[in-house]
Amino acid sequence: MKKEKAIVVFSGGQDSTTCLLWALKEFEEVETVTFHYNQRHSQEVEVAKSIAEKLGVKNHLLDMSLLNQLAPNALTRNDIEIEVKDGELPSTFVPGRNLVFLSFASILAYQIGARHIITGVCETDFSGYPDCRDEFVKSCNVTVNLAMEKPFVIHTPLMWLNKAETWKLADELGALDFVKNNTLTCYNGIIADGCGECPACHLRSKGYEEYMVMKGERA
Amino acid sequence: MKKEKAIVVFSGGQDSTTCLLWALKEFEEVETVTFHYNQRHSQEVEVAKSIAEKLGVKNHLLDMSLLNQLAPNALTRNDIEIEVKDGELPSTFVPGRNLVFLSFASILAYQIGARHIITGVCETDFSGYPDCRDEFVKSCNVTVNLAMEKPFVIHTPLMWLNKAETWKLADELGALDFVKNNTLTCYNGIIADGCGECPACHLRSKGYEEYMVMKGERA
Repeated sequence: MKKEKAIVVFSGGQDSTTCLLWALKEFEEVETVTFHYNQRHSQEVEVAKSIAEKLGVKNHLLDMSLLNQLAPNALTRNDIEIEVKDGELPSTFVPGRNLVFLSFASILAYQIGARHIITGVCETDFSGYPDCRDEFVKSCNVTVNLAMEKPFVIHTPLMWLNKAETWKLADELGALDFVKNNTLTCYNGIIADGCGECPACHLRSKGYEEYMVMKGERA
Repeated sequence: MKKEKAIVVFSGGQDSTTCLLWALKEFEEVETVTFHYNQRHSQEVEVAKSIAEKLGVKNHLLDMSLLNQLAPNALTRNDIEIEVKDGELPSTFVPGRNLVFLSFASILAYQIGARHIITGVCETDFSGYPDCRDEFVKSCNVTVNLAMEKPFVIHTPLMWLNKAETWKLADELGALDFVKNNTLTCYNGIIADGCGECPACHLRSKGYEEYMVMKGERA
C-alpha cells in the first residue's frame, strides 16, 4: 500500500465503485469527488454519497451544472431520448465531459495534497466516447501536470477490462456482493439489478453472467 | 482571412482585447467567451460585454463560480491580499485556471462549430503561472483534440510578446487608442489607465511607455 493520497472520480456506479475499492487497497488515504450536473437521476449523487459513507471515505460534491449550458444531450436532460446511430457518437455524448472531470479532479487533488487521481473510464466498452480512450487519459495526465507543475498520476484500473473482468476485480477485492447490491448503473435510476431493460442494465447483467460462467458458477 | 470560425477567451483586459482584434483580422467568424467566477470586480464582465458589443461580436458568458470552491485565493475573493513571495506561485494563482478555461472554450467551440480557439496567455510576463507557458498550451491542444476527436487549433498570438510589443500589435491592428481607453487591467477595477498603483497598472503603463519610445514618440 502506497503511503500517499488519492482522489477517485466517483459516480456511485459499478465501475467507479470498483475503482474506489481498488484505491482503498492501493493507497493509504483516499477521498472521492462526485460531479453533479443535473444527472438524469439525482439519486446517482445520493447513491454515491451513501456508498462513500458506508466505506468511510470523504466525498466532495462539485456542482457541474455549467456543463448543461454547453452540451444539451440525453444524459443530462430527460426530454431527449437516448439513441445510438451507427458510426455516430451516442446521443448521450457530452463532448469533453471526462476532460472537465479530470481537470477539476486534478485541481481538487492539488488543493488536498493528493498525487493520485483514479478514474473508471475504459476502452473496452468504448461505445464511441473519445474521452474514454487510453490515449486521451495519458495526454490529459501530461497536460494537468504542466498546468499545475505537479507530478500527478492518473490511474485507469479498468481501462482494458470488459464488464465480466470488472466484476472479477470486485470479487478479488472481496466486494462482489457489495458492488452488485449498492451501485447504480440503470438509465432509469433503479439501483442494483436495475430495470433490466435499458442499454446500461444489459451491459451490466451480461458481464455478470459471463463472469459467473468464467468462475464456473454457471454452465 | 481564413473562412473559418474562431472563439476568443475574452476577459475585457488589454491582452484578450488585442487577441480579439487579431482574430477579427484572421478569421471570417469570431465569437467570444467570458468566464465569470466572482472576479474581484464584476465590472470585468461588464467591460467584456461592452467591448464585444462595440466590435459587433457575440459574447458567451459562462458561470465558473465552481472555481471558487476549489481555489480560494486573492484573485477571486476580496478578503485576501494580493502578495507575491519569492520563488512561490503568486497568491493570485488559481491552479489550473487556464486548463479549465481552455477545456470549456473547446467544448463551446465543438458546439458552435468553431475550429480555432484564441487565448491571450503569454510566457513573457510569466509571473510564475505554469498554465501560461507555451508547453502547457500545446499539450492542452493535443488533449482537447483527443477528448473530442476534433482538429482544434489553439492560437496564442501574444505568447512571446512583452507588454510593449502587445501595444505594438494593437497599434498595427489600428486599435491602439481603442485598447487603451476601453480595457480593464487594474486590480482595483478602474478601466483605461486604472489606479496607476497596483502591479497590473505598473506592468501596463511601463509597457506603453516602452512602446512609445520604440515608436519614437518619447525620448
